Amino acid sequence: MMILNPVFEVVNAIGLVAFALVGASKAVREEFDLFGVLIVGLLTAFGGGTTRDLLVDRMPLVLQTHWNVLFGVSGVVLAIGLLYAIDVPDEHHITVGADAAGLAAFATTGAIVASEAGVSAFGVVTIATINAVGGGVLADICLDRQPFILFQDFYASCAVLGGISFWIVSGFTASTTVPAAVCAGTTVFVRFVAIGRNWRLPAVSGLVVD
Amino acid sequence: MMILNPVFEVVNAIGLVAFALVGASKAVREEFDLFGVLIVGLLTAFGGGTTRDLLVDRMPLVLQTHWNVLFGVSGVVLAIGLLYAIDVPDEHHITVGADAAGLAAFATTGAIVASEAGVSAFGVVTIATINAVGGGVLADICLDRQPFILFQDFYASCAVLGGISFWIVSGFTASTTVPAAVCAGTTVFVRFVAIGRNWRLPAVSGLVVD
Amino acid sequence: MMILNPVFEVVNAIGLVAFALVGASKAVREEFDLFGVLIVGLLTAFGGGTTRDLLVDRMPLVLQTHWNVLFGVSGVVLAIGLLYAIDVPDEHHITVGADAAGLAAFATTGAIVASEAGVSAFGVVTIATINAVGGGVLADICLDRQPFILFQDFYASCAVLGGISFWIVSGFTASTTVPAAVCAGTTVFVRFVAIGRNWRLPAVSGLVVD
Repeated sequence: MMILNPVFEVVNAIGLVAFALVGASKAVREEFDLFGVLIVGLLTAFGGGTTRDLLVDRMPLVLQTHWNVLFGVSGVVLAIGLLYAIDVPDEHHITVGADAAGLAAFATTGAIVASEAGVSAFGVVTIATINAVGGGVLADICLDRQPFILFQDFYASCAVLGGISFWIVSGFTASTTVPAAVCAGTTVFVRFVAIGRNWRLPAVSGLVVD
Repeated sequence: MMILNPVFEVVNAIGLVAFALVGASKAVREEFDLFGVLIVGLLTAFGGGTTRDLLVDRMPLVLQTHWNVLFGVSGVVLAIGLLYAIDVPDEHHITVGADAAGLAAFATTGAIVASEAGVSAFGVVTIATINAVGGGVLADICLDRQPFILFQDFYASCAVLGGISFWIVSGFTASTTVPAAVCAGTTVFVRFVAIGRNWRLPAVSGLVVD
Repeated sequence: MMILNPVFEVVNAIGLVAFALVGASKAVREEFDLFGVLIVGLLTAFGGGTTRDLLVDRMPLVLQTHWNVLFGVSGVVLAIGLLYAIDVPDEHHITVGADAAGLAAFATTGAIVASEAGVSAFGVVTIATINAVGGGVLADICLDRQPFILFQDFYASCAVLGGISFWIVSGFTASTTVPAAVCAGTTVFVRFVAIGRNWRLPAVSGLVVD
């Protein structure tokens, strides 16, 4: 049941630290108490993977390990440290970079777990995307916002493309390392291009009015 | 694990197209981008059944099939097509009719899966209701609204009555076709009567003030 | 699969009545119809335990029993009765007391189920806390509020301390009765002290400004 794949472990740790930092930075803005900041940080970090594990019908990984939570706590501590050092942490390029890294890391861990669980190609792409954006969506719901992925940016689409690239490449090799690398690379590359070029998907109501 | 019951497949397909149409119509109003409209449509279509599958402790059906998602996508495409053809799709009688059809279809698929999973009578009615209204509730939460079923209309109650009728009829026959037909018929009939007569349940605070 | 531990059953029944009362009292304020008040009451009562059961990968207990739902319904009926008898039920000391009792009861049932499921120490504390606060969080999300635990009071922290106390004591005894009693006692004691002394965790943004 427990995945001991070292590629998975490393990528997962990167995602946990990165997304805990991003989530905690958002929560600080909302004037939450320390417990609230910790919870939103951990929810952002662990929410996507926990949803993934529920969907492939197994006990969430984080509940079976003693130390995984520390990666999330490190991200929260980092966010609070950054708040002391820099003025507005959640628009800073460190936060934006951490967000892209987390997105790529969790699209990759989602694709790995989904393909091991034997879901369909559609399932692999869906679970990769849910793992990548699920934590942020849950945090937004707890912050009583519309989930930002629904109306903003070329964001979840990067994880969809990452998941598709994982599925295509895994048709050519038995290892998970190569598809994982391609998935992470595709997601982070598309995300940075989308930020750099300010890509947006059109709004449907805009399409109709035009 | 996979249900290959043809009654289930047909009823499920009807529900998926209908609820994707309803969900996408709501999302268009909120000025979401194409990805957002697709996500809200698919969430409305697949959210109830996925929650049902999690509750009966199995992997969601949609992740195991390649093509089920296409029913949801068809509903979204239909909603965008209706937006071009008609002015305000989410109050139109096509949308209201699709919503009643989806409610009845998913109350029925929920009752079928629940009774196969061996839950209690309370479990059958609860899962039928959650399958019927779960997608709409998740969509409302993502649209940052109070779920409409909580304060509006005689809506979820129709699915409750459908689930109860399924459970009663299934005591008299071994087939699922007859209880399924009765459940779908009861739900859609009560829903149309409720719309036609503008039935409402009383608010508790109103009861007390009177 | 079914837990027939009498300690569990009694503590669970207390939690169900108490939290259904608290949830229904909140919903009455929002002018929901009878169905909405019932749903928010039952969601508050059953949401935490259902989330717990999903996390330890088993079918939710409430769906397997015929009569557990009646404890929840009793709490809702009590809340409506209190509304007739007293003016503002959701600030009354009965509601505050019921809330503390529910918090302690569900931290305890969560810790029992988690330790039987063989999760890590971190998992026991996490599941105890999620069981204790999950129903209230789900109700707040449905009421379209920020979950109160995120920005208010020394509340979830009481369940965390209860879960830790359960885990420590269960290292010294094979029975679950003693750890359960310590967990419930710790949670309710800390909660009442927190209310009495008006304890609050500091907001992170406040820490930085100071």
